Amino acid sequence: MTKAVLNSEERPRQWYNLAADLPGYSPPSLSPGKMESLFPACLIEQEMSRERWIRIPEGILQLLCRRRPSPLYRAAELEKALRTPARIYFKDESCSAAGTGKSYSALAQAWYNKEAAAQKLTAETASGQWGNALAHACSQTGLECRVYMTRVSYDQKPYRKVMMQTWGADCIPSPSGTTEIGRQVLREKSDTPGTSAVAVSEAVDTALKDSTGVTRYAPGSIMNFVMLHQTLSGQEARAQLALFGEKKADIVIGCAGGGASFAGLAFPFLADKIAGTDMDIISVESRGAPVLTQGCYRNDTADTAGLTPERLMYTLGNNFIPPPIHAGGLRRHCTAPLVSEAAHQGLITPRAVNQVESFEAAVSFARSEGFIVSPETAYTLAAVVQEALKAKEEEREKVIVFALSGHGLMDLKGYQSFFAAELPEYQ
Amino acid sequence: MTKAVLNSEERPRQWYNLAADLPGYSPPSLSPGKMESLFPACLIEQEMSRERWIRIPEGILQLLCRRRPSPLYRAAELEKALRTPARIYFKDESCSAAGTGKSYSALAQAWYNKEAAAQKLTAETASGQWGNALAHACSQTGLECRVYMTRVSYDQKPYRKVMMQTWGADCIPSPSGTTEIGRQVLREKSDTPGTSAVAVSEAVDTALKDSTGVTRYAPGSIMNFVMLHQTLSGQEARAQLALFGEKKADIVIGCAGGGASFAGLAFPFLADKIAGTDMDIISVESRGAPVLTQGCYRNDTADTAGLTPERLMYTLGNNFIPPPIHAGGLRRHCTAPLVSEAAHQGLITPRAVNQVESFEAAVSFARSEGFIVSPETAYTLAAVVQEALKAKEEEREKVIVFALSGHGLMDLKGYQSFFAAELPEYQ
Repeated sequence: MTKAVLNSEERPRQWYNLAADLPGYSPPSLSPGKMESLFPACLIEQEMSRERWIRIPEGILQLLCRRRPSPLYRAAELEKALRTPARIYFKDESCSAAGTGKSYSALAQAWYNKEAAAQKLTAETASGQWGNALAHACSQTGLECRVYMTRVSYDQKPYRKVMMQTWGADCIPSPSGTTEIGRQVLREKSDTPGTSAVAVSEAVDTALKDSTGVTRYAPGSIMNFVMLHQTLSGQEARAQLALFGEKKADIVIGCAGGGASFAGLAFPFLADKIAGTDMDIISVESRGAPVLTQGCYRNDTADTAGLTPERLMYTLGNNFIPPPIHAGGLRRHCTAPLVSEAAHQGLITPRAVNQVESFEAAVSFARSEGFIVSPETAYTLAAVVQEALKAKEEEREKVIVFALSGHGLMDLKGYQSFFAAELPEYQ
Repeated sequence: MTKAVLNSEERPRQWYNLAADLPGYSPPSLSPGKMESLFPACLIEQEMSRERWIRIPEGILQLLCRRRPSPLYRAAELEKALRTPARIYFKDESCSAAGTGKSYSALAQAWYNKEAAAQKLTAETASGQWGNALAHACSQTGLECRVYMTRVSYDQKPYRKVMMQTWGADCIPSPSGTTEIGRQVLREKSDTPGTSAVAVSEAVDTALKDSTGVTRYAPGSIMNFVMLHQTLSGQEARAQLALFGEKKADIVIGCAGGGASFAGLAFPFLADKIAGTDMDIISVESRGAPVLTQGCYRNDTADTAGLTPERLMYTLGNNFIPPPIHAGGLRRHCTAPLVSEAAHQGLITPRAVNQVESFEAAVSFARSEGFIVSPETAYTLAAVVQEALKAKEEEREKVIVFALSGHGLMDLKGYQSFFAAELPEYQ
């Protein structure tokens, strides 16, 4: 057996909320006034919730059913190539219409906003995966959509914009001339590569300044409710692992920029770990933006202009400008509060790897397993290879589960630069 | 229900050979000598076979099982958008690792060649889908691979090359300086957009001239054995349609360039039609390369240099140079003998549509159903929309089935040109 798919009765119908189980964690108490101009009430409630399980509305389940549940694959060919005794499994989120697991929250947020009579959503995107997922979700729910895409990613992945346009959204490079914060950053440094933090400010500002009041902001990460929506991935992976006959995972690996894709796979496993199961949960980040390995644990905002609420999390500072690595999703200055708190408590183990070893792992994965993955997932794969080789050294049959969070078909310029040996080693 | 997937017992384990059922059709009797330097004996046998069902070797079933069987979807959102009483279904082949249904034959050919001790395969590609499928198949079976890609497509879809490179293959624009025929064409017209017929000549010539005798040629179309391998698509679609509770299809639609994707979906339905079921089977082609609607039915070769055997088929002449439409797969001068014969007998109804109406249909499909399709599938969609609107006019609940033969993620330049209104109307 190489693939496990759940049938419809086995599919989860609730989201898992780590806030209920994380020892000593208090959800934020946010001032509803400001939040309500950005988010529908249901999402604000989810943000502050301590309920362990939150029921998924039927309308969202309907939207999610296409191309889902995503399969869990055994990476038997990669195991052979590495000659490892480890059994490696991956949750393939690349098969969704938007090509990324980010659709879990994108479809949920679009649905809640549509129900709350919003007409338009704004968002930031770095790698373009969130922008794609949201543009797709808006087309499925009849919402307009504007995406601010970090300029360096916009230039590295020019066709992301065309995808969003095909779904009817518009995508502009950030910093842009359309917002005050964008113009200010451009005045200071006109050739800036842009950052997610500035793109978030632009998206939030656009939503707040819309005088008709029908524009809301849809974040692709950081917020608890985004982590919550993504947990379908890990819930399914746990159930699928059992279909393979595995009793438990020994190692769970995902890359963490803002933290949404990582949380999606890891949180349901983390619940097991908190309940006493022995397990390593590894978050992988770039050496160029080492938030969890080198950042400070303190209050900070997700955006440069401070339009989003302050949250306790690991951060490199909201004016940090990361190097132009191809994994745009790993260029953030901060990681979500829930992921940060879990890291702070030692429940997850952060690891930084560099771009070149990531692409090396991605190419050997493509040649063994056939899948061409996103640069973000390439970072995950670098850690997977490290752990598989460690298992070989230790002669132990470990079970490794990782997230293939998106395909790399919009990111082939990165692969091209890798083949041409043009990527700096250190990032 | 919006999606039907077969479980493992329901999956077909044989290929369907239309040559057994097509009235008055005689398979070619090919001189084995010349053919044996191009193909393994098993494939030559399949080319000339009149057996209705041909067993699929276990090794090929293994290779095929990943990301298969591909789902059949009900296009309920498209139906709503068109307000048609027709029920529209599509077989989604875009989910394979190579992103195209061409993997059916690519994996089969790679496996047979590996068994026959070949070490390297050469191929032509136009849109890049066959090149991708074969590069992926070679990586899965441990073969080297060289792909000659029509220059215009090579320029329109630069990242196809990077995909092939990621799987370890090399891809060069055709005409190239690496073969005599390539050099000759370049001498005559150095800025030629290239044609599939020249690319085939280059691929065949490279295989024939390899003095070590371990290089074979892997065609992506034309040959009976390619059609044969593709028929898994239609066999599955028939079974999946039944899972939706449909007794039969009224209209089956696929685009036909060389004819492989079309045959894959259509031939198993064609068997029903030959046996007496009332059904329209529509092949869609470009007005710029109107092979089945305006070509001659006569003997011709699939390549310019005449290195491939003469076959009776519809052709525009093997030196025909089509316009540079984005649907590279629909730029061929000829369509496969089996498809041609079925068209000649009136069993299938060819239709030519133009590029602009194709992209219009593709964009409305993306906004309703979420999928961004290849430019080839966009032509299919134009005919699907025509038939759905006709059903509305006639107030008839017709069942339409079509092939989504590949995703359009490498073809976004075409969408970009469409949005910029840069595409000529006539093609």
